[in-house]
Amino acid sequence: MVYLNGEFVAKADAKISVMDRGFLFGDGVYEVIPVYGRRIFRLDAHLRRLQKSLDALKIANTYPSEKWLAVIEVLLANNPSDNQSIYLQITRGADQKRAHSFDKLTPSVYIESNPLIPKTQQQLSQGFAAITQADIRWGRCDIKATSLLANVLYSQQAKEAHVEEVILYRDELITEGASSNVFMIKNDTLFTHPTNQHILAGITRDLVLESAKACQIKIKESGFSRQDLTTADELWISSSTREVMPITRIDGCEISQGKIGQYWHQVYQHYQQLKHG
Amino acid sequence: MVYLNGEFVAKADAKISVMDRGFLFGDGVYEVIPVYGRRIFRLDAHLRRLQKSLDALKIANTYPSEKWLAVIEVLLANNPSDNQSIYLQITRGADQKRAHSFDKLTPSVYIESNPLIPKTQQQLSQGFAAITQADIRWGRCDIKATSLLANVLYSQQAKEAHVEEVILYRDELITEGASSNVFMIKNDTLFTHPTNQHILAGITRDLVLESAKACQIKIKESGFSRQDLTTADELWISSSTREVMPITRIDGCEISQGKIGQYWHQVYQHYQQLKHG
Repeated sequence: MVYLNGEFVAKADAKISVMDRGFLFGDGVYEVIPVYGRRIFRLDAHLRRLQKSLDALKIANTYPSEKWLAVIEVLLANNPSDNQSIYLQITRGADQKRAHSFDKLTPSVYIESNPLIPKTQQQLSQGFAAITQADIRWGRCDIKATSLLANVLYSQQAKEAHVEEVILYRDELITEGASSNVFMIKNDTLFTHPTNQHILAGITRDLVLESAKACQIKIKESGFSRQDLTTADELWISSSTREVMPITRIDGCEISQGKIGQYWHQVYQHYQQLKHG
Repeated sequence: MVYLNGEFVAKADAKISVMDRGFLFGDGVYEVIPVYGRRIFRLDAHLRRLQKSLDALKIANTYPSEKWLAVIEVLLANNPSDNQSIYLQITRGADQKRAHSFDKLTPSVYIESNPLIPKTQQQLSQGFAAITQADIRWGRCDIKATSLLANVLYSQQAKEAHVEEVILYRDELITEGASSNVFMIKNDTLFTHPTNQHILAGITRDLVLESAKACQIKIKESGFSRQDLTTADELWISSSTREVMPITRIDGCEISQGKIGQYWHQVYQHYQQLKHG
């Protein structure tokens, strides 16, 4: 069962007009919200970011927070999994005719929830591989928008290269992954790209920084280069569904001889406490 | 009546799955093809470009040229207008679950045709206004893809500024408009950005160059800067539905004292011959 524009329907019956601007233009925003032990994790932070994305695109938020929560709770209850991943998409809506510019429309709202299966301890203990690519995405990656074709192509590259993620660089500085934020440990300091228009201000990024602070790790929200990766002590990626994951191979080369670092262990443990706290 | 995945249906009944990757990711391509006096204008060139876009995204083209033509002819015959604009969209199709990377799917095909109403001689004789903006679009604008959010935002800016188009610059060089190619006349030479990954290789762009050649205008496919615009003799935009239009005001300043240039007249006349030739 999924939610579409006011109704709970079978997924196979969830259909939208071809005039929906999400279909015609990728003119929409989305959120992915994890649920652990049937508790929605950081819903408020996700709804705040949703509002920011909507505001940036001048799409109205037609639901108050309580209504988002009420709809999500019905979907959660309908799903047997204790851990779930909620996908929530709002598009600008359907117009009578296709034109790039827009008038005031009724936004389309789509929500589904699926089982969330985190990586196992064994998978995590082996580390993950990534490749780097030039970041050719648009200049407003701070908006969590559905015009995701660049991200689609990167993810496909990752899949074809049998790696976990494509890590992107713009003007030689690492920005983020195709669907994750990126962190580097070097000289006992945690580096991550500052939030600006070139990266998404990830909710999990905030949680990783919160965890790092709790572990008393020195944090620098400043850019680091592709070159820096070759001598990094640790490299991590984070996202709502992947939490925080150690990357131990980049472009075929090992980071710190392929060993998972102590800081990742600390932050990962703290993150688990936050999830269940 | 519109065409969707093998069927001719009323537009109100044309619905796609929420799992369609066009809706979830802007993972699709499109073409806009003009029809003059019930003759499809340069269909072959549009289908060649469609194929290029599909190839770039590894989406299969499931229809041979004859089938595209057959479907389009039904839609044309069903529309009373002699001049029409065909909109054709192909997305990667609908999968069972949402993932950025993709498997082989059956592409979704949507086609509609609407009356095409060109600008009147009186409108053209007054010239049009445009504004400039930094080009923040992604690095593969050569693919005619439906991840169009940047273009949507630019077109909305144009609408709110009461101008015809937003003309974009990247590293100070004029690339193209939000939904058009851009041409400048200076010292009896026609300049336009060369085709590369930063602009769409417009079919109408080719027709304008073809017309300019026929009019024995010297052509330079090389970049020109935003600064050059201030001393341009003529500025034009082109697109399938707008043909070639004179821009006489840019960012509130007149170009050549707001007069429409002789070269535009020549090229426009030749373009009209091509349309009906």
